[in-house]
Amino acid sequence: MAYSTQKLHEEKVFKDPVHRYIHVRDQVIWDLIGTKEFQRLRRIRQLGTTYLTFHGAEHSRFNHSLGVYEIIRRIVDDVFANRPEWNENERLLSLCAALLHDLGHGPFSHSFEKVFELDHEAFTQAIILGETEVNEVLSRVSPVFAQNVSDVIAKTYENKQVISLISSQIDADRMDYLQRDAYFTGVSYGHFDMERILRVLRPREDQVVIKSSGMHAVEDYIMSRYQMYWQVYFHPVTRSSEVILTKILHRAKELSEKNYTFAHEPYHFLSIFKGAVTVKDYLKLDESIILYYFQMWEDEEDPILRDLCRRFMNRNLFKYVEFDPSKEYKKLNELEKLFELAGLNPNYYLVVDSSSDLPYDFYRPGEEEERLPIHLMLPNGELKELSRQSDIVDAISGKRRTDHKLYYPKDYILDDSSHMEVKAKIKSILGLE
Amino acid sequence: MAYSTQKLHEEKVFKDPVHRYIHVRDQVIWDLIGTKEFQRLRRIRQLGTTYLTFHGAEHSRFNHSLGVYEIIRRIVDDVFANRPEWNENERLLSLCAALLHDLGHGPFSHSFEKVFELDHEAFTQAIILGETEVNEVLSRVSPVFAQNVSDVIAKTYENKQVISLISSQIDADRMDYLQRDAYFTGVSYGHFDMERILRVLRPREDQVVIKSSGMHAVEDYIMSRYQMYWQVYFHPVTRSSEVILTKILHRAKELSEKNYTFAHEPYHFLSIFKGAVTVKDYLKLDESIILYYFQMWEDEEDPILRDLCRRFMNRNLFKYVEFDPSKEYKKLNELEKLFELAGLNPNYYLVVDSSSDLPYDFYRPGEEEERLPIHLMLPNGELKELSRQSDIVDAISGKRRTDHKLYYPKDYILDDSSHMEVKAKIKSILGLE
Amino acid sequence: MAYSTQKLHEEKVFKDPVHRYIHVRDQVIWDLIGTKEFQRLRRIRQLGTTYLTFHGAEHSRFNHSLGVYEIIRRIVDDVFANRPEWNENERLLSLCAALLHDLGHGPFSHSFEKVFELDHEAFTQAIILGETEVNEVLSRVSPVFAQNVSDVIAKTYENKQVISLISSQIDADRMDYLQRDAYFTGVSYGHFDMERILRVLRPREDQVVIKSSGMHAVEDYIMSRYQMYWQVYFHPVTRSSEVILTKILHRAKELSEKNYTFAHEPYHFLSIFKGAVTVKDYLKLDESIILYYFQMWEDEEDPILRDLCRRFMNRNLFKYVEFDPSKEYKKLNELEKLFELAGLNPNYYLVVDSSSDLPYDFYRPGEEEERLPIHLMLPNGELKELSRQSDIVDAISGKRRTDHKLYYPKDYILDDSSHMEVKAKIKSILGLE
Amino acid sequence: MAYSTQKLHEEKVFKDPVHRYIHVRDQVIWDLIGTKEFQRLRRIRQLGTTYLTFHGAEHSRFNHSLGVYEIIRRIVDDVFANRPEWNENERLLSLCAALLHDLGHGPFSHSFEKVFELDHEAFTQAIILGETEVNEVLSRVSPVFAQNVSDVIAKTYENKQVISLISSQIDADRMDYLQRDAYFTGVSYGHFDMERILRVLRPREDQVVIKSSGMHAVEDYIMSRYQMYWQVYFHPVTRSSEVILTKILHRAKELSEKNYTFAHEPYHFLSIFKGAVTVKDYLKLDESIILYYFQMWEDEEDPILRDLCRRFMNRNLFKYVEFDPSKEYKKLNELEKLFELAGLNPNYYLVVDSSSDLPYDFYRPGEEEERLPIHLMLPNGELKELSRQSDIVDAISGKRRTDHKLYYPKDYILDDSSHMEVKAKIKSILGLE
Repeated sequence: MAYSTQKLHEEKVFKDPVHRYIHVRDQVIWDLIGTKEFQRLRRIRQLGTTYLTFHGAEHSRFNHSLGVYEIIRRIVDDVFANRPEWNENERLLSLCAALLHDLGHGPFSHSFEKVFELDHEAFTQAIILGETEVNEVLSRVSPVFAQNVSDVIAKTYENKQVISLISSQIDADRMDYLQRDAYFTGVSYGHFDMERILRVLRPREDQVVIKSSGMHAVEDYIMSRYQMYWQVYFHPVTRSSEVILTKILHRAKELSEKNYTFAHEPYHFLSIFKGAVTVKDYLKLDESIILYYFQMWEDEEDPILRDLCRRFMNRNLFKYVEFDPSKEYKKLNELEKLFELAGLNPNYYLVVDSSSDLPYDFYRPGEEEERLPIHLMLPNGELKELSRQSDIVDAISGKRRTDHKLYYPKDYILDDSSHMEVKAKIKSILGLE
Repeated sequence: MAYSTQKLHEEKVFKDPVHRYIHVRDQVIWDLIGTKEFQRLRRIRQLGTTYLTFHGAEHSRFNHSLGVYEIIRRIVDDVFANRPEWNENERLLSLCAALLHDLGHGPFSHSFEKVFELDHEAFTQAIILGETEVNEVLSRVSPVFAQNVSDVIAKTYENKQVISLISSQIDADRMDYLQRDAYFTGVSYGHFDMERILRVLRPREDQVVIKSSGMHAVEDYIMSRYQMYWQVYFHPVTRSSEVILTKILHRAKELSEKNYTFAHEPYHFLSIFKGAVTVKDYLKLDESIILYYFQMWEDEEDPILRDLCRRFMNRNLFKYVEFDPSKEYKKLNELEKLFELAGLNPNYYLVVDSSSDLPYDFYRPGEEEERLPIHLMLPNGELKELSRQSDIVDAISGKRRTDHKLYYPKDYILDDSSHMEVKAKIKSILGLE
Repeated sequence: MAYSTQKLHEEKVFKDPVHRYIHVRDQVIWDLIGTKEFQRLRRIRQLGTTYLTFHGAEHSRFNHSLGVYEIIRRIVDDVFANRPEWNENERLLSLCAALLHDLGHGPFSHSFEKVFELDHEAFTQAIILGETEVNEVLSRVSPVFAQNVSDVIAKTYENKQVISLISSQIDADRMDYLQRDAYFTGVSYGHFDMERILRVLRPREDQVVIKSSGMHAVEDYIMSRYQMYWQVYFHPVTRSSEVILTKILHRAKELSEKNYTFAHEPYHFLSIFKGAVTVKDYLKLDESIILYYFQMWEDEEDPILRDLCRRFMNRNLFKYVEFDPSKEYKKLNELEKLFELAGLNPNYYLVVDSSSDLPYDFYRPGEEEERLPIHLMLPNGELKELSRQSDIVDAISGKRRTDHKLYYPKDYILDDSSHMEVKAKIKSILGLE
Repeated sequence: MAYSTQKLHEEKVFKDPVHRYIHVRDQVIWDLIGTKEFQRLRRIRQLGTTYLTFHGAEHSRFNHSLGVYEIIRRIVDDVFANRPEWNENERLLSLCAALLHDLGHGPFSHSFEKVFELDHEAFTQAIILGETEVNEVLSRVSPVFAQNVSDVIAKTYENKQVISLISSQIDADRMDYLQRDAYFTGVSYGHFDMERILRVLRPREDQVVIKSSGMHAVEDYIMSRYQMYWQVYFHPVTRSSEVILTKILHRAKELSEKNYTFAHEPYHFLSIFKGAVTVKDYLKLDESIILYYFQMWEDEEDPILRDLCRRFMNRNLFKYVEFDPSKEYKKLNELEKLFELAGLNPNYYLVVDSSSDLPYDFYRPGEEEERLPIHLMLPNGELKELSRQSDIVDAISGKRRTDHKLYYPKDYILDDSSHMEVKAKIKSILGLE
């Protein structure tokens, strides 16, 4: 029997708190899960530093990747199978792309990518196409299979239907993470009737559409997403921990560039500092490695690196005030000067962080987050873009919301043992009584 | 105002998936949570290697410790407050003991304790009484307070009521972990009506008892516990990962004792290998550190250490067969010899693991797990031990159940590229046709 | 001890699927629950005919009334107690008004009120103030207490804070029914974080406000309400069953006015038909009585009454098409003529039903549904109306959505055994190919 | 296309709070649901008078019947389909038997059957085989189909596999009602991992067995069932309401036999009183009819009937004391005499009620509740009876638990306005201070 259609002798199931059970019957999927590149995702948290705000959010990307796979499996096996618009040959490809779509995520991706100009999507492709166990498994399916999987994830695969399953404004990725992140954080947002949505998904020529009878479930999903962004993903405390993490990486890189001698040599970081990281180096990075270095660096001589690492490890975060970038840059400049005077390097201790989200968007070609809009299929087969059918989605569609905050170490500012006068001025500007 | 009664200006709440919210109003509790020793519990998983079986089980002891605190808080503030049998002065002590009861747990405690003869309870006391941030906070309450907290956890405190709250056969510890572990693994066991149980807890002279009207909720708790033990805690795959972990530690220790030169020197382990670990050393250990070393050791020269580390990191576990210790020791000896012949050190590659549990026990003085039995309070005030009132508890009371399995690397045995004949014999004994 | 402060010897608890437990400690509340007027609410369904669409929706107003009481109890006992802005003397009044707010609901209120021009709020007051067991209990508290309870429910009580607790755009009534109706129907809408909302409610001079930190939970509540209206309350199938029910009542009234001789005399309806119903008569009506008559009427001689009753009892409902009142009245007139020709009385067999909802509204004096808007309290104590703070609420605020449908008996129209030609025209107009 | 294989043009779904969705694709099933005999089940509560104890328990047998159907549908379509041991021709038969298994239940069946010596199973068969809409639908499938459905429900059908699906110690009936009754009452018992159990069910020659890997889920089901019996089904307050209901029926029958002239003639009861009820009469009975009469009888002249009806309608129930039938009959006789003296007819006002359950039983031929035991299938295909594999089931297997209580009207006994002396004796015997 061809490897691509080989079934396990007995179906394997994973107990999953979100989808109850994750079912694996394909030998290919089972083999992919067993690769060391996929197992590595166990050591990378799904929500980065969010566990410092919501203590339940300790779940990994391994967890989420299985969930996305399971959603796609239910769609292709329970909903699409035997529909003429669906090509059964795309089944295994869809399952593999779902399982592997986050394979290239590194530890605390968001901060790493920002500081070191890395791109997890490029690494996903490099791992799938490189000399890895994952590539070995995929290549046993067919010579082009690894490339196809990579193309689906890169959104360049020719069959747009498959791309739309994996990444659109209502794809399996989002449906899994909203529910999963809600489950592990324990918030009451993030719930919507996924079972209903799955039942009304339909394959069409070049996309996946939703029967209009499911519109309200989709509205609910859009609102869930909106709430999760502002209540969980952009939580100001999480952003504080990310600010600190980012500044640790900045500092380490800066020290390295200045030929600072680390008491504990950062072997794992060397190629990254130089901007020349290989896939092999990259795969050695995970969050246990990062946390190891951060703990080592708690005793480094450099006071900034040491302080930031201690803050991060012991959750002694920065506090924040609202910041209006359209009016307050002068104030920021003034604060920067005062921080210098107070002995606090403003590059590390005075940080503006901005978060921004579009709850839903119809298509605007060329725009940054170019995800396809959601199309409803009316009973007569006609397609309508969601915001034209739903009052509530129309009301929020295309409205970008942005939030700016200014982060700083409140404990240092309140500490009167030095620079009393300067700190008094800072306190007055920041509104600390 | 005395530090012991100081309240936060505004109550702090943690979103918790199990108890919905965890409420902190006491300054002392808030300060304890902020200590670095308590924050360290974020880096120690509640269920050790169980995440390799149940992928959701990635939650930390930090998580659980807050949960136990919250349960005790609800008991003392909502149920016991204003009852004459309850001494309000024990309130803060109970809360602190609840919060800190697991403080001395190290990474993968179970295996560490076995291999290195450590005792997490002794470390809990040493941290509470030593030169730590936790001790500093507790000492601000009163000079004897840290000692009292330590005594409650060590079960030597004079007021047995408080001890019975924190550790008995139905204490806040167990009530939290059963529910929490069920939540994160996603299994459908582990549920019982905790709200009902809390409402019928009553302080009595030297213990906490349960009004007999709550008996059925308690039966349900006992059954939940039984199911969780056999379905989750003693899951054979989890035991396999623990066997490997234990053998890694054994091997590293053995190599160190034999003066093997590690390519990557195990600094963090040195004092442990020598059996002379200090509290300060101990506090530096957490699971990210351990995983760092395991990854380093994947490239060690020693083939056993290298192999076991790779197995653990990439989840390539041992398989098992049932083993009957009363009849099969001869068979085990034979297998040991064959493993030697096949080039597999049986000390590391052929492991009997036994798990054993008592679902509930009435009091048997002198017995190992000397937890107090559960007493029901009848409407007339009389106390009756649970198994005398409940048919179902009586039926399972005192019945120890034990399970033995023999673990081995199936992939090696099935690999025919060497020692074909010996392996054929092994396969025949193990029933691998 | 005064009756108003008398506590039960032991707290009574009701197991409630929505709030887990409902707690009763006040003798007055316990006595009110035991009155026959309150027990009657067990025989009146919360959602009228909705059980014909969502089979789980069989819960009664008894159920809901206890829930509203419990929410108010938690607010006044756990959140408001000891706040200077809250007058503890209003506690019992608030609890009683919560428990009794729906006391005057009759069977299938919506249809009954429309056909017979009854007003359940007037009956609530009449029952509270009349010669009833409820009045007897309330009068034992104080001579004015029954009047006060009635005033709170009628929104004329002087302390507007209390009114705002019981009826506003985010009151205990709505918070209970959204969750309860979601629970019993099984839909996935209707969830929001009530625990969070309760925790941030604050009494202010003349209203109850919400701390702005709870804004997102309130947004979620508003969205839940919106979804419940369109997914559950205005479900087109439910509206069909209500159309039939209404027409049964119309027909029975018309027949009575025409001195038709009922085979089964409708004793319970006589005073209602005459528009002269007393409180005593009214209290004898409940849904078992109505269903008794409907079953009797299945054998009445009048073909319309008989047919409609059989349809209702056996759930053989009308079907519907969309109807645009701004354009399609001519079509409706034409249909009416054709229905006459086909032997179907259009007054009973061709019915336009319109449903309309405002998801949220800021204050517009004089408007029909004059519920107070929701005010957020900023950290500085300032109040802001919700839609000024929330983008998402602003987007939907004040936007009335209306839906019109035309109901008719499809089975009759499709039955070709008579009036073939006329029915062919009707089918063509209704789009039944 | 044959009626038996005809599919609906579009699948119909019912929103169900327990199973999320109930799916109907077969025309036969859809037609059965639409019959008036099946719709009648909406007016018969699943748990009789239990709603007087657990206010959420207002759900109907309609509700439950759909649930049992859905479970069987999942088994035959998702688990059994394509297994050689399963005969696909039994599919529709299994679905119909599941849907209709409770069709013959009357209002408050338990009490009705006791007083009038009726048998709901005989009525189920009579409805299926008689001149009914249900029979008409079934007969369209094939001439013998109605008889086959009836035989499955009566456990006389030749293929025992099908019988074992519908009624055994772990059948779809029990799995639905445990979960459903738990959901609507809101108790925390009644949960078990049904999804797991369904996945490990296997058809064998003459029964349905369970793969031994599912043993723990089955243990959990057995324990759930045990708890539900004692916490919900045999709740002493529910038994009180059933005692009163039974006594109302007794009294009405006795009065009728004595030619008492009812102010409100009980037409619906006449044939029942005479023991000559036809299927047609029987189908007219439902709980709204019964409640109509009970309300009418609240004003009957007979003081006992009047009093009992008022008690039932207004939930003024009897209280109870424990009763030991092995020792206390003398006491009971004495009480009977005293009740007579106090003017209380002991036949109606002093009632012993006994409830008894076997949590699980292995096979004991000839025993009353002759449900087949549960067989586990070991990996080698061998079958073992559950209690031989499960310690916990073995511990409770075959152990009948019985509870006896003595019910009486406490309010009358405490009322000192008459028979003071006699009542003092009664109080002393009953232990009322």
